[in-house]
Amino acid sequence: MSEYGNMTLDQYRDALASDAPTPGGGTAAAVALSQGAALAVMVCNLTEGNEKWKMGWGDAHSCRNVATKLLELGHQLASDDAQSFDDVMSAYKLPKNTEDEMSHRRLAIQNATLNAAKVPMMTAESAYELLELLPSLARTGNGNAVTDVGVAGLLVSAACKGALFNVEININSLSDEIGGNLRNQLEKLRESCRDASREVMHAVNERMQS
Amino acid sequence: MSEYGNMTLDQYRDALASDAPTPGGGTAAAVALSQGAALAVMVCNLTEGNEKWKMGWGDAHSCRNVATKLLELGHQLASDDAQSFDDVMSAYKLPKNTEDEMSHRRLAIQNATLNAAKVPMMTAESAYELLELLPSLARTGNGNAVTDVGVAGLLVSAACKGALFNVEININSLSDEIGGNLRNQLEKLRESCRDASREVMHAVNERMQS
Repeated sequence: MSEYGNMTLDQYRDALASDAPTPGGGTAAAVALSQGAALAVMVCNLTEGNEKWKMGWGDAHSCRNVATKLLELGHQLASDDAQSFDDVMSAYKLPKNTEDEMSHRRLAIQNATLNAAKVPMMTAESAYELLELLPSLARTGNGNAVTDVGVAGLLVSAACKGALFNVEININSLSDEIGGNLRNQLEKLRESCRDASREVMHAVNERMQS
Repeated sequence: MSEYGNMTLDQYRDALASDAPTPGGGTAAAVALSQGAALAVMVCNLTEGNEKWKMGWGDAHSCRNVATKLLELGHQLASDDAQSFDDVMSAYKLPKNTEDEMSHRRLAIQNATLNAAKVPMMTAESAYELLELLPSLARTGNGNAVTDVGVAGLLVSAACKGALFNVEININSLSDEIGGNLRNQLEKLRESCRDASREVMHAVNERMQS
């Protein structure tokens, strides 16, 4: 399994650009989550402990707790996503000469596809957990870093929405019985993510005018 | 000047998370541009030359021409953005004991701030140039990679909007005479970017249902 955290930005970019099946959008979404979380941690650090922004210490503290754990989780999910996609490809390559082989292959494809939907769902849920906390950080955090909250919000929102594309494409090849629950989660999360993204942008714009 | 392309993803993420003034949101936006462009290049590669997606060869060719040059430019702008911010900080530290020193310092701050607005404007313009081409790629490119166009669109849109936050915050401390032109550009580009982002999402969603 590739450890994306150890790649240079140049190597990672070139791996994305190559026509190898992985890394693709699912990995890119998880990496964006890590980078957005890092910007959020920076703003929390520039807020907490600075007397001028004392009103924001509570929000910064809560936000840092969530964002810090996503720094590493994002890179982990980037690898997991690539692995889960490779597993789907391997399942499709299983032999299909006998009834037994065909049935084994069908089940392997189903399980691998379900997992390839669950991994980006974890990316999306983790992104949303942070996204929800960013409007408060934009309102009360260090005012000199409000544009950094804005970029964090854009990256974390891209991570959430991008991961949900990958959940959806995998669910589309599962039966309702297998993928139905995930589809419900997907639809709720997509709506919540859209609302939270708008709220962050609104809070950042308001703070920039104040 | 930091060469972000040579940093590992872990090092870059930790540099973003630290409370050092740079790298911040401007750099993160430019890096996201590079990563989004890389995904677009992948989809172009998976389209052009593949008989099944012949209808998309023209769109893929045009898109690859633009996206390829952004692979490196994004990382260059990431460094330029950090440098331009450091230059503003240095200008503020100039001595201000005499009239001459104060006047020299005022001019240095103004020039550095103008440059710190121009660099993210270049990031935003470059991002928009690619964003405009993604709806066609989503419609006619390799259908198996449509979610990758979706994630590319989200990252490139985040790069554009995020860079524009940084243009705006710097313009806000310039006189209308100095920053007026950039402000007009900013407002037009923000609107165009919002429209193009929506069009990409719409095209990706339609293609996923087809």
